[in-house]
Amino acid sequence: MIPTDEDLAQAHARLRTRVRHTPVLHIDGRDVGSHGTLTLKLEQLQHTGSFKARGALNAVLTMPTAAASVTAASGGNHGAAVAWAARQAGVHATIFVPSFSPQVKQDAIRRYGADLHLVDGFYADALEASRRYAADREAIHVDAYDQAATVAGQSTIGVELAEQIPPGEVVIVSCGGGGLFAGVCLALRGRNTVIAAEPETAPSLASAIAAGRPVDIDVDRTGVAVDSLGARRAGAIATAVALDQRSAVLLAPDRAIRQAQQQLWDNLRIAVEPGGATALAAALHHARDLAGHRITVLISGANS
Amino acid sequence: MIPTDEDLAQAHARLRTRVRHTPVLHIDGRDVGSHGTLTLKLEQLQHTGSFKARGALNAVLTMPTAAASVTAASGGNHGAAVAWAARQAGVHATIFVPSFSPQVKQDAIRRYGADLHLVDGFYADALEASRRYAADREAIHVDAYDQAATVAGQSTIGVELAEQIPPGEVVIVSCGGGGLFAGVCLALRGRNTVIAAEPETAPSLASAIAAGRPVDIDVDRTGVAVDSLGARRAGAIATAVALDQRSAVLLAPDRAIRQAQQQLWDNLRIAVEPGGATALAAALHHARDLAGHRITVLISGANS
Repeated sequence: MIPTDEDLAQAHARLRTRVRHTPVLHIDGRDVGSHGTLTLKLEQLQHTGSFKARGALNAVLTMPTAAASVTAASGGNHGAAVAWAARQAGVHATIFVPSFSPQVKQDAIRRYGADLHLVDGFYADALEASRRYAADREAIHVDAYDQAATVAGQSTIGVELAEQIPPGEVVIVSCGGGGLFAGVCLALRGRNTVIAAEPETAPSLASAIAAGRPVDIDVDRTGVAVDSLGARRAGAIATAVALDQRSAVLLAPDRAIRQAQQQLWDNLRIAVEPGGATALAAALHHARDLAGHRITVLISGANS
Repeated sequence: MIPTDEDLAQAHARLRTRVRHTPVLHIDGRDVGSHGTLTLKLEQLQHTGSFKARGALNAVLTMPTAAASVTAASGGNHGAAVAWAARQAGVHATIFVPSFSPQVKQDAIRRYGADLHLVDGFYADALEASRRYAADREAIHVDAYDQAATVAGQSTIGVELAEQIPPGEVVIVSCGGGGLFAGVCLALRGRNTVIAAEPETAPSLASAIAAGRPVDIDVDRTGVAVDSLGARRAGAIATAVALDQRSAVLLAPDRAIRQAQQQLWDNLRIAVEPGGATALAAALHHARDLAGHRITVLISGANS
């Protein structure tokens, strides 16, 4: 279930010319109210405006060739990514999102030519609808985070980082279900410590690590970043990787997320959604704990 | 008056740790409705949201040490840059802008701690007010484009590009008074052809090249990019460089500028002002003339 090193290498070879190699930007910590220097990996520049394009495309390109269509459940970004990936591969996509999913994400899903279904309830309800649709219609369900092909796709960010930052630098990435965290962690293990950043309102991986297995949590639906990071349960892959690597999770309060989002705009003219600013928010909020480390933060999405 | 190679080298050494080394992003031309591949230099990520920070800081750091304050005239971006640079250097700044200058730019100038004066009329009127102020108060006037130190500051973009793109690639940059064009052109001469992109509504450098010297033009004040690129007269430095290098100018219609701006947002989540999208607009509008060349486009500013 956890992708192998071979899966990661193949994903990188497969995606290398099909996704954007996103640049890093080195900034003075003072530019975001901190100190030292900070490296930002600008993954909001990726196709569809988030890292999700990588996992979705890898999953779509590696599915059984007989499948004529794909389906997915998503807070929005993964849905847009699967819609985009399906169009690249010439297959049809049907996407299920909770009805509170931001309009900009719903519009993107439709713009990429997918059928969009709004589901009353939360991500878990959309997920159930997507799985049912897959079973009924012989479509392939592309999971947002708990699938080897998805995680292997996200791991290509780590492969790029290995050429962009020095060994030893700490990498902080946002975490919902943990596909991004697991992929980057696997790609960089032994070279860079990867820390997951979760909103305080949805600490799914922190709870899974504490319990030793994925557990359902109560997500505070008023959280500013829950449309993208509000998974009720961390993925089995992410949990296994985190336990194996003894990974740390940093929680970011909503206030810090909004502040990081504002600072990215005011001082860097980088427009991000709250989930896209959560890794930076965690880095700034826990600056004291991180003192003495060189930090790279992943800016993960821009669709607010 | 044209900065020497020594001026350029000193500016680079001076600014290297004080401005952001902005990254490049390689994209598929189809992402912006074109073909082939395209490289974007993301200078909108610079301090103050535009390349102007480079020229302003170099000018402020090289002024006579006796000067306790600086003054500048600007459509907005240069004003914010001088205000920022003055704060870095611990001197006071007084900025004159035309009253139609965008609110976001006026706010930025005030946020960096400068005194802001709104001038009825156009850039030329603000320029006259700045020069008068400089004479009356023994302040140093930092010119937006027609000053060796300003041009040398902008040239550091070219120095960075020399490490980021291969020789032979054509570089397209937006042009108002021509400080950016002159600087990048000087830094890359003999290595890369640099083309100036102007809005059709304000072809100051094109007119200067045609006349063999800077001439006053009629700027169409309804043009979408004239708040940043609406200089009535190209700089003497830019004109001399363009004539010496036999440089080409590409004009972009407003429709193409708006379209490029929209595509940068829709497909890359890069927020830019119209002037910041003008080089891309020119590249896309003249794609047929540029066929067969590898193109780098400078994204110059994000303050709309």
